[in-house]
Amino acid sequence: MPLDLSLLPDGGVIWMDASGEHSDIVLSTRIRLARNIEGYAFTGRARDGERLRVLAQVRDAATQVPALAHNVFVRVDELPATDRLLLHERHLVSKELAGLDAQHPVRSGAAVFLGPDVGVMVNEEDHLRLQSLRSGFALPAAFEAVQQLDRELGARVPYAVHPEFGFLTACPTNTGTGMRASVLIHLPGLVLTKEMGKVLAGLQQMGLTYRGLYGEGSDVVGNFFQISNQTTLGRSEDELLQQLLVVVRRVIASEEDARRILLRDAGYIIEDKVWRAYGTLRYAHSLTFDEAMNFLSGVRLAVGLKLISGLSVYTLNKLLIFSQSAHLSRAEGRALTESEANLVRARYVRHTLAQEAGAP
Amino acid sequence: MPLDLSLLPDGGVIWMDASGEHSDIVLSTRIRLARNIEGYAFTGRARDGERLRVLAQVRDAATQVPALAHNVFVRVDELPATDRLLLHERHLVSKELAGLDAQHPVRSGAAVFLGPDVGVMVNEEDHLRLQSLRSGFALPAAFEAVQQLDRELGARVPYAVHPEFGFLTACPTNTGTGMRASVLIHLPGLVLTKEMGKVLAGLQQMGLTYRGLYGEGSDVVGNFFQISNQTTLGRSEDELLQQLLVVVRRVIASEEDARRILLRDAGYIIEDKVWRAYGTLRYAHSLTFDEAMNFLSGVRLAVGLKLISGLSVYTLNKLLIFSQSAHLSRAEGRALTESEANLVRARYVRHTLAQEAGAP
Repeated sequence: MPLDLSLLPDGGVIWMDASGEHSDIVLSTRIRLARNIEGYAFTGRARDGERLRVLAQVRDAATQVPALAHNVFVRVDELPATDRLLLHERHLVSKELAGLDAQHPVRSGAAVFLGPDVGVMVNEEDHLRLQSLRSGFALPAAFEAVQQLDRELGARVPYAVHPEFGFLTACPTNTGTGMRASVLIHLPGLVLTKEMGKVLAGLQQMGLTYRGLYGEGSDVVGNFFQISNQTTLGRSEDELLQQLLVVVRRVIASEEDARRILLRDAGYIIEDKVWRAYGTLRYAHSLTFDEAMNFLSGVRLAVGLKLISGLSVYTLNKLLIFSQSAHLSRAEGRALTESEANLVRARYVRHTLAQEAGAP
Repeated sequence: MPLDLSLLPDGGVIWMDASGEHSDIVLSTRIRLARNIEGYAFTGRARDGERLRVLAQVRDAATQVPALAHNVFVRVDELPATDRLLLHERHLVSKELAGLDAQHPVRSGAAVFLGPDVGVMVNEEDHLRLQSLRSGFALPAAFEAVQQLDRELGARVPYAVHPEFGFLTACPTNTGTGMRASVLIHLPGLVLTKEMGKVLAGLQQMGLTYRGLYGEGSDVVGNFFQISNQTTLGRSEDELLQQLLVVVRRVIASEEDARRILLRDAGYIIEDKVWRAYGTLRYAHSLTFDEAMNFLSGVRLAVGLKLISGLSVYTLNKLLIFSQSAHLSRAEGRALTESEANLVRARYVRHTLAQEAGAP
C-alpha cells in the first residue's frame, strides 16, 4: 500500500514554510543525533532478526516518549521504492534508510517516526538517528527539540555510551556527541562573485564541511550548499553549535555583501540573468531537475534582491521539493520515464508560477 | 532636420504587414531593376556635380510618372547618419545608398523616392535602382509594379542600353535585365533538420544565390535567408522570375516537410525550445539584436507550427524591424550606446509581447 503523506501531521513539509531567520538565504536547519542501543550489533553488521528486535524495542519505548506523541510511524522496509524515494526527496529520511542505492537495498527493520518537530530513523547506519528539521536558520530551536527527544528516548532505551569517548557510533566520524548540525543555504552571490572557494576553505579550517542538497556524496547544484560540523568528538554539543552559528552568520553576512556588490557592479547583467531564468521557468516545456534547480536559484536570488516581487520564498521551496521525480510520479499517479518527468516537471513549474503571477 | 517617417504613406512598413502568400515563411518579396542614364559616368566614377545633375533630371521626370505620384522624395545625402541607418533598417534603402560604411560615406546626390508600392534609389551603385517590396511571397505582383514604374520612368529618362547585352550597369553582374528578384524567407525547419546545406547547394546549381537579412555581405542570423537570382544576362525577366518562383515554391514545400518531420520526431524538444525562446523574450532585461533575431526565429517557428497562438506574424515582423538600433534610438529620442540599446530592446520586446498576450 502506498504511503499516505496526508497522514503526516503537516505533510512533512512544514520545514520549508520559509519562516525562521534569514529564510531567503537559509532554507532549513537540521540537527541529528546518532545513537545506538546497548546489546545489539551495529545495523550494518546485525542480522534481520536483530534489527527487528531493535525496532520492536524502540517502538515500545516510543509510546512512552512525549516528544513523539504526534509522530506517525512508517515501516520504511514495507514501502514500495517510489514511496521511499518520496520520503527522501522530502528530506525526511536519508538515502541510506530509504535503501535507494542498488548496492544497498532497504534493510528489513528500517523505519521512521515522522513528526512536525522531530523524527527518528530506526536502523539507519546507527540504530537511531534522532533529528529535528526546521525552516530558516534555527540552530538553537532545532537543538532544543532534538535534545528533549534524546532525553526522553534515552531514559527508555539504553544507549551505547563509552565513558571516555561518549556515544558510540557505527562510523567513528560520528563518535562522541553523535551530532551533526547542518544548514541548507543558498549562496549565489558568493558563487557569482567567485568568493565561494575562499569561504569553503575557511569552513574547513574551522572544522566545518559542506555538501550538496542531498547530503553526503551529492553534488552542489543551483548554488545550494549544506554546511555542517565535521567534528563530533572532544567538544560539547554547545561548543559545536556555537561555532556553526558564528560561522554561518558570517557566511550569511558575506553572501549579503556579495549580493550588494553584484547589484552595484553588474546590476543590469544580474537583472537580465534572473529574469531570463524566470522566463524559462514560466514557459519551458521540458526541464531536467538540475536545470530547474539552477533556474530556481536565479529566481530565488531575484526575490532576495527584490528584483522580482509577488513571488514567495515558500513557493520557491515548494517548487524545489515537489518538482523531484518521485513527487511528480505521485502527482501523476504513475511511474514516469525521465523524459516524461521532464515534461511533467515543466508543466508543474509553469502552472505554479503562472498562478502566483495571477496570469490568465 | 531628422526625417519624419510619419510622412511616408505607410510609415514604410506596409511590406511587413504579413499579408500575401505563405507570409509565415516568406517575410517579403523584393524586385529591383538597375538602370543608368545615358550621357553620365556611373555613380562611382561621377563627380558630385554630375550626380546632382542625374538627380535633378530624375526628379524632373518623376513629376510626370504616375507610379511615383504617391511617393515621398527624400534627399538621403542631407539626412543625419541615424536617419540613414533607420531607412536601411526598414529595408527601404541599401547600405550603399545610406553611406553606412565608414570607407564609403554617403554620396552627395543620394536620394530616394519612397512609396507604398514602389520606390527608386538615385545615385546608388547605379544611377537608378527601381524597386518593389511586398509582404509575403508575391513575385508576380512585385514584378508588375516595378515593370510599370520602369516603363513610365524609362519613357522620360534615356536609359543606357546596349543592343546586345541589354541594360548597362556599373557592375557587370547586373548587366542584361538589371533585375534582382529576392525573397526573404525563414527556414528554421531546414536548418534544424540539417537539410539546409543541400538546399543551398541546389540553389546555386539553379543559378540562384542566398544572403543574410541585410543582403550582400550580411550573415545569416535567426534562420532568415534572402534567396535571389544570380544570373541577370542571357535570359528574360520572365524566365528568371519563373525559375525563382519554382525554386522558392520547392523550398517552401521542403521547409513545410521539415517542420512536419520535426514535429513528428522531436515534437517535445521543439516545443520546449520555442517556448523557452518565447519565455526569454518575455522576460529578458537585456537583448542583443542577434539574440533577439534568434529567439524571434524560434517564436516564429512556433506560430507557424501553431504551438503558440494569439501572436500575430505581423507583430513578429514588427519586432524584427523595430528592435534594431536606429529604431530604438528614434523611439527613445536620443543616441544609445550598445548596452543601452540592449536594455531598451529587451524592454520594447517585453512590452510588445506582454501586450499581445493581454498580460497585466
